Formats: sequence, structure tokens, C-alpha cells
Amino acid sequence: MRNKLNIGLFGFGIVGTGLYEVLNKSKLLEASISRIVVKDPTKKRSIGTELFSFDKNDILNDASINVVVELINDSEAAFEIVKQALKSGKHVVSANKKMIAEHFEELIQLAKENNVSILYEAAVGGSIPIIRNLEEYYNNDSLSSVQGIVNGTTNYILTQSNFGVSYQDALKKATELGFAEIDPTLDVDGFDSKFKLVLLIKHAFGLIVEPKNVFNYGIRNIKPQDVKYAGEKGYRIKLFSRAEKLNDDVVGFVAPHFVKNDHFAYQVDNEFNAVVVEALFSDKQLFIGKGAGSYPTASAVLSDISALQFDYQYEYRKTTDNNVSELEDDFFLKVYVGSEFIESINEIPFFRIDEVYQGGDYNYQIGWVRFNDIKSFNLNDLLDLSLIVLPEPFVASNQTEKLKRERIQYLSELEN
Amino acid sequence: MRNKLNIGLFGFGIVGTGLYEVLNKSKLLEASISRIVVKDPTKKRSIGTELFSFDKNDILNDASINVVVELINDSEAAFEIVKQALKSGKHVVSANKKMIAEHFEELIQLAKENNVSILYEAAVGGSIPIIRNLEEYYNNDSLSSVQGIVNGTTNYILTQSNFGVSYQDALKKATELGFAEIDPTLDVDGFDSKFKLVLLIKHAFGLIVEPKNVFNYGIRNIKPQDVKYAGEKGYRIKLFSRAEKLNDDVVGFVAPHFVKNDHFAYQVDNEFNAVVVEALFSDKQLFIGKGAGSYPTASAVLSDISALQFDYQYEYRKTTDNNVSELEDDFFLKVYVGSEFIESINEIPFFRIDEVYQGGDYNYQIGWVRFNDIKSFNLNDLLDLSLIVLPEPFVASNQTEKLKRERIQYLSELEN
Repeated sequence: MRNKLNIGLFGFGIVGTGLYEVLNKSKLLEASISRIVVKDPTKKRSIGTELFSFDKNDILNDASINVVVELINDSEAAFEIVKQALKSGKHVVSANKKMIAEHFEELIQLAKENNVSILYEAAVGGSIPIIRNLEEYYNNDSLSSVQGIVNGTTNYILTQSNFGVSYQDALKKATELGFAEIDPTLDVDGFDSKFKLVLLIKHAFGLIVEPKNVFNYGIRNIKPQDVKYAGEKGYRIKLFSRAEKLNDDVVGFVAPHFVKNDHFAYQVDNEFNAVVVEALFSDKQLFIGKGAGSYPTASAVLSDISALQFDYQYEYRKTTDNNVSELEDDFFLKVYVGSEFIESINEIPFFRIDEVYQGGDYNYQIGWVRFNDIKSFNLNDLLDLSLIVLPEPFVASNQTEKLKRERIQYLSELEN
Repeated sequence: MRNKLNIGLFGFGIVGTGLYEVLNKSKLLEASISRIVVKDPTKKRSIGTELFSFDKNDILNDASINVVVELINDSEAAFEIVKQALKSGKHVVSANKKMIAEHFEELIQLAKENNVSILYEAAVGGSIPIIRNLEEYYNNDSLSSVQGIVNGTTNYILTQSNFGVSYQDALKKATELGFAEIDPTLDVDGFDSKFKLVLLIKHAFGLIVEPKNVFNYGIRNIKPQDVKYAGEKGYRIKLFSRAEKLNDDVVGFVAPHFVKNDHFAYQVDNEFNAVVVEALFSDKQLFIGKGAGSYPTASAVLSDISALQFDYQYEYRKTTDNNVSELEDDFFLKVYVGSEFIESINEIPFFRIDEVYQGGDYNYQIGWVRFNDIKSFNLNDLLDLSLIVLPEPFVASNQTEKLKRERIQYLSELEN
């Protein structure tokens, strides 16, 4: 019942090389790479040249190749390759979260029409089998939230910041270790985390959302003073991709969060990734694994290849009638906003202010903001401002009485 | 492509009731319970009586029922039911780790012969999808170890011991909360953990081992002094089911372990379960979830039922030629042995002694022991002795030069 797999590989970078080695070392799989297409004919390769080609059609027009593994960086070139592969009746395994997030609906449709699979476990959470688990395991349990540290570079930088390592030094080191994207703004401004969130939202809630409509705010603005504040309060700062049910809507975004030491993610450090899934019956579940690097990502690619032996395909069982959907942006969340400049903080419209600290060198303000208001700022570019989400449940826009009443109570307490 | 599932349910205890509720609340599944067979006609039930029967043949001889869900306590009665169900061409979902561990080979064979599935995700780790992940995800990655906290009752008792709650009080509370087995020795002496380990070993390493050949030592003997020692050294005590590759062999057992705060399991408290999987390419991965209780276990059962809609069956891809296998028992491990009585400690044959503490009221000794020697004791009944495994890698029996050399070095250091 196992299909013999003949693989055409696009890209021979960190993950591609890892896959080649892993595939050679793993004995249980009936699969082999028969051609590798790369862009740069002059680049020196770690293996013999006989498998290499520089023309994509050497794979795409080869009828003996039944699986295309796409591991290149350029997401638009990747899309062209994958589209053509699916149309030629080849299965596709990809780790390209940007490409998938941006062309999600078309890719799913193409795979369906051509009766082939497109699998992308390696695109989210590296070695963590989160797509497969969301797809297979939670399909009948009422999922309420998915929250993850899904970018190794930023988690590495944030972890190192606890030890006083500067942002620049930590980013340099992450690049050396092979965690960082070629364009580091994809990592540090939360774009990579956002593309992954788009994939998680589809498999968790059945919704396809457009990346451009999803808010992403990264870690570039986080100052040593914010890290110091976190330490004093027993928090750590983690960049979360999160989506959850809020009444009948789904809300979701990427932003730095303070987490307490009773949170699953508190101890998830460096290049490790973690995803917490909350569901009505199974309650909270945590998946932790290495989210970046050659072998962990290659092992996820390998797992997809292996699944193709058994004709596996995502069923998208949670898909709702309206395929393209919107996240709900009208809700409230509690945040910390820090800056050297009080006037910068004052630009953020607070619905309710709970704490104000002004310290001369550094200032912060804590309180409730309307997500819609925050989303209208390009926070990644407001370098003198850092916004970090506090661990309080969101409040829906039709429940603001609660916030108001508490505010009145709070103010009257102060007056007494 | 979805099969309509008509379920016959055996047992209506904590998990059975949970399943009934979960199935009614979950809208995505085309499955319904058409009959529930229970033992006791006089017991009051939380739902109407029309579904209930007291004759197992009302399910087993009903050709319209294509899935048997077995959730009863008596493992021998369960085996008879499951055997007959498989022979009648019905799929089986079971949470009965004892029954499966004790009749593993026969059950796999019966399912194969009758072309039906037997699924048992709920038997290990409650809501954690560990069997499915071992089966599906790691089948091509060279797995080196599986280590888990898979018994909620003992983890609850051990967690509470850190707060000074006595063993008896904590066990009573665990029973009230519905975590404990009806016969608590199954939990506290590590039998339940052992049956689960047998299932993990099959899906991780492809070996079927007989429960009676697997060493299990629980937490009954752990004294407040041991908990105090752990606290002083920055350890917590966790009952681990663990199996790992040691050279070309597989070793495995159940015993209490000291874990440091950098270990994944350190913060896994109360009824939470956790499984750490180590593999060559994906490195360490951790799964955490609720391991006990009505809904978490029912959600795992539901997930198996759901998989049957898509004709899912375990492939046992790692199965080796010789189906029934032996664990390797000839290796060395580092342990702490504590007792009020020095003579009790002296009964344990140490290969190398690293530390001796004699305190009048309580004494302990730390060093390396041969697993074979330890296995020959019935440690669960030696109530005045507590043995806890220390976080050091095992040493194979052909590598004892290392231990000896270190011992000599250690002694000569003392002499200087």
C-alpha cells in the first residue's frame, strides 16, 4: 500500500541540505531525491553535482517525479513552481509559510482539482507536528484558542535579552546559528510569525484570512528597560502568534506578551517553539520542540514525505461555507506601553488607564486599549515605543461595561 | 468518504459519561451511541434508561453497531468483549491500558485478521495524542527515547507533597477528583504507568514487551525527608515511565526520578501528564496535557472515534521481525536510596558509592547500581526504603570502565 516516492527538490539551503542527509540516514522510507534544482550554478555544493540542475522544468516536466519538495526563499518563485507542480499532478511538500499564507485558497483549490496533496508541516513550528495535530486530533473538540511561540529567531533574541545580550548581538548570533530569515525584518517585525498564524487559523478554526489583514508587531522596539520591568514583575517577554474565539468571533494577531512563570511558555527558551491549544474537552495542551535549524525543519518535511506514502492529505474538516473570512478587530486588551518620551505614550489612545509610571529616563503606562485603535498604528516603525500585551483575557466590545465599572471602582478607591 | 458510525458503549463511569456528553456537544461527528451496556442494573444513571442494557450480546450481536467503545474497569472482561467485537468485524476503541498491554500481540493480530481497527489513544496520557504522534510522525526519525509522566494520580500526590500535604490526604483528594484507579495500588505502585509504558514502547520502538517483565516501582515509599532533600537540591520528584535506546538495545522501566528545573517535566504538576520524545533529527519534543479526568480522556476516545470515520488504523510501521521482545536489563544507573535505617540501605548492592549521609533520623546513599540487581527486589513492598533515580545518563554494562575509572579518580581525590 506504500507509494514509491520520487522526489524533485527545489532549493539546497540549510533545510534542503538537512533533508538530503536525513533522507539518506533514515532507512524506513521508500523515497529518494532524483533531482535538485537550485538558482546559483556557481555556488559550491556539499554533495556531488550529478543531481543538480538549474532549470525548474527538469523537475516539473519529468513525469517520473511524483513529489515536489519546495524549500526556496523567494515566495513568488515558489508559488509559480508549486502551482505548476500541482497542475502536473505532483504532490507538494513545502516549508514556505509566506507563499502558503498569501495564496492559501488557490493552493487548496489546485490540490483538490488535481487530486494531489499539498503538505506544509515544516512551515509552522519546525519539528512540532502542530498542523497535523490540529487537523487530525482536535477536529471534533471545540477549540477555543491557539497560542504559539513560532519564530525561533525572536525567541532567541528575547531569551538572550534576559542575560543582558543586546538586540543586535543576539540577532547576529541567531543569523550565525542559521535560525534567522535572510531578511531579518521578516522575523523581528513579526511577519514570519504572522504567516504561520494564518496557517494555524485555517487548521484551528477553518478560516482563511489574508495576511495583510492580520496585525503583526514584533520585538524591534523592546528596550532593556522593558526587559528589566518584566524581570521585576516575574514576567518574561514572548512573541506570541495567537488566535482565539471571542464569543462567536475569532480574534488574532502577533505581538509581544508578558507571561508569568505559571504559563506553559515561560520556560520555552532560545530557538525552541511552543504551541498551546485550548479546547473545551481536552483542556490545555502544549507542544514544544525545536522550531528552527536544519534537522528539526527537515524532520518535519520528512514526516510529510512519509505521509504521502500513505496518500495523506489535509481534509480541512473545519472549513466553513465562506472560505475567505475576517478576524474580529473590535475588542479590548490590556497592554503595557513604555517609552523614553511621555508624549509618545500619550499618542496611544487608552480606553482605561490602570497604572502610570514616569521615571525621568523611562516611562510606562498600563491599561486597556481597543485593538482597532492599536491596529491603525504602524507600531513596528515607532521605534521609541514598546507595546507588550499583559496576561488578561480579552474583553469583547459589547462587554465594556465591565471595564468601565471596574474603572469607576478603581478611581473611587483611589479617592477614598 | 466518511463512515457513519454506530457505537455500542461498554461502561458508563467517569469516562463513559464524559464521552456521552462530549459526543452530544460535538457537532462535527457523524456518530451516535445506540446502546450502552453496564454491569449494575441497580445503579442510578445520569441519563434516561432507554439506551441501557445489561447483556453484552445486545451490542456484540447487533450487526448495525460497527464500533465498540470499551470503557470498563475489569481488564479480563474487557478482553473477552474486545476479542468478540473484533471477531464480529467491529472496530474497537479502548482506554484499557492493562488489557491492551497484557494481550497486545493477540489484539493486533485479531484486528488484522478481521480487517478492523483497534485504537487506544485514551489509554496513554489522557488527552495527549502521543500514540498517534509516535505512530505517524516519528516513523522515519530515529527515536532515541520516550519519557513520560503518564499517571495523574501519582503526579498529583507528588505535587501536593511539595506543599506538605501527606501521601494519604493527597491520595484521598485524587480519588475524590476522579483521577485515581479503583484499586489505588495500580497507580501508586506504578502498574498503571507500566501498562502505558508497554504501549509507548510498541509505538516508539516496535517492540512488544510483556508487562510482567517490565520493572515498576511507584511512589508509596517516598518520605517527607526525600521531598525535603529534593527541595534542597533544586529537584522535584516525578514518576517516569521511560524507555530508551542504549547502544543497540532498548531499556525501560517505571520509577521515581529527581528532575532539575531545566527539565521539561519540572513544571508539569498535579493531574497534568507529559511525554518527552527524543529523536535524532527533530531533537527533543514535549507534549503536555491533562492526563486524567472525565473530559480529557473522553476527548481522546472521541478523537479515535473520529479517526474511524476515515478508516484510520495503526500501521505499527516500526515492528521488527521478532514481535515479542525483551528489554535489556544489564545496565547501570545512578540512584538515591533513603531510609530511616542504615541496614535497609545496605541491602541495596551499590556498584559505586558517591555520597553517604547519615543523619540519625534519616540516611541516604547516592551512587551507581546495576539495574538487574534493583529489579530483583520487590521495592514497592520495602516500605522503609525509597529509591529515586538521579538525572545521569545510563551506562551500558560493557562501559563500566568509565564508572570504575571515575570512582578511582574520585577516591584518589578524597585521599589527596
